[in-house]
Amino acid sequence: MSLTVIKYDRGMGRWEPDARGRLERAALELYIERGFEQTTERTFFRYFADKREVLFWGAGALQELLVTTVTDAADADAPITAISAAIQTAGALFQERRESALLRQTVITANPELQERELIKLASLASAMARALRQRGVEEPGASLSAEAGIAVLKIAFERWINENGRPDLPQLIRELFDQLKTATAG
Amino acid sequence: MSLTVIKYDRGMGRWEPDARGRLERAALELYIERGFEQTTERTFFRYFADKREVLFWGAGALQELLVTTVTDAADADAPITAISAAIQTAGALFQERRESALLRQTVITANPELQERELIKLASLASAMARALRQRGVEEPGASLSAEAGIAVLKIAFERWINENGRPDLPQLIRELFDQLKTATAG
Repeated sequence: MSLTVIKYDRGMGRWEPDARGRLERAALELYIERGFEQTTERTFFRYFADKREVLFWGAGALQELLVTTVTDAADADAPITAISAAIQTAGALFQERRESALLRQTVITANPELQERELIKLASLASAMARALRQRGVEEPGASLSAEAGIAVLKIAFERWINENGRPDLPQLIRELFDQLKTATAG
Repeated sequence: MSLTVIKYDRGMGRWEPDARGRLERAALELYIERGFEQTTERTFFRYFADKREVLFWGAGALQELLVTTVTDAADADAPITAISAAIQTAGALFQERRESALLRQTVITANPELQERELIKLASLASAMARALRQRGVEEPGASLSAEAGIAVLKIAFERWINENGRPDLPQLIRELFDQLKTATAG
């Protein structure tokens, strides 16, 4: 990965149609090679507002996916079942984009500032899911507890998945962790 | 609250023995009055390394309290029982320092940068409790799930407590939320 490649991409052309996805990957590799702090902003202006956006541009879509899954769950589903379905859907998405997810995590792990932003993102996802549950008529504190529990599962599942190099089936791992959470909280 | 008061305090004297606690309160009021961003660093050098330290100097002691409570729980206690005991102990501490806790939260709520640091702190507390559980022989993912569930309860309980101006009994609220979490995750 070199600046030349990114420069070439700025001219568009043969990288279409997934120019953004390809630049994301190139940028992630650049961050890993040079370090996030040492990478300059000027190469990213066409596809990304700034260096951070390479890592967080998918956050809006992820939130929408979680919220839609919670909203569309069957009426008979318990809140935790709707949350589990949403987190599994997110897991399937990460599994699909395994390579990007691994690169991205390498960058985030190396930068405390990015870890902070990641935690903020997770907290926002929990709030958004709790709101979606309330709109289904779930009362507090049940809505927030279920949503926060779901994010705790996602965090732990994702960490294990990354540690095993993205090999285990992430949605399956998430299902197992929801079962184990039920056992753990039952005491 | 004015700079004069802090200046007087820098000369020590009649504010002892709880000079640090009093300056903390004075600083919190100053942050609320002027805004955290607008407050300059130069008044804090005796008791606090910087402006942020006024808000986070208790984090180390809080972590130690949580870890000690988890470590000292009865051998027969389930991991979630040890975590619940730890979170209740933290709740009792906040209840005792109700006024400072309310002032501190006002400052944090007004500053996204401080909210990030607060989330980092909570994530560290979860990791420290999970580690303490593992040292008791609790296996993963049970240790992390129980610890993260505990932090989720703390977060939600604290938010409700702050919204009701610190009036409800926080340890009691925490106990109730652990029960509700059990119901919620059972589905």
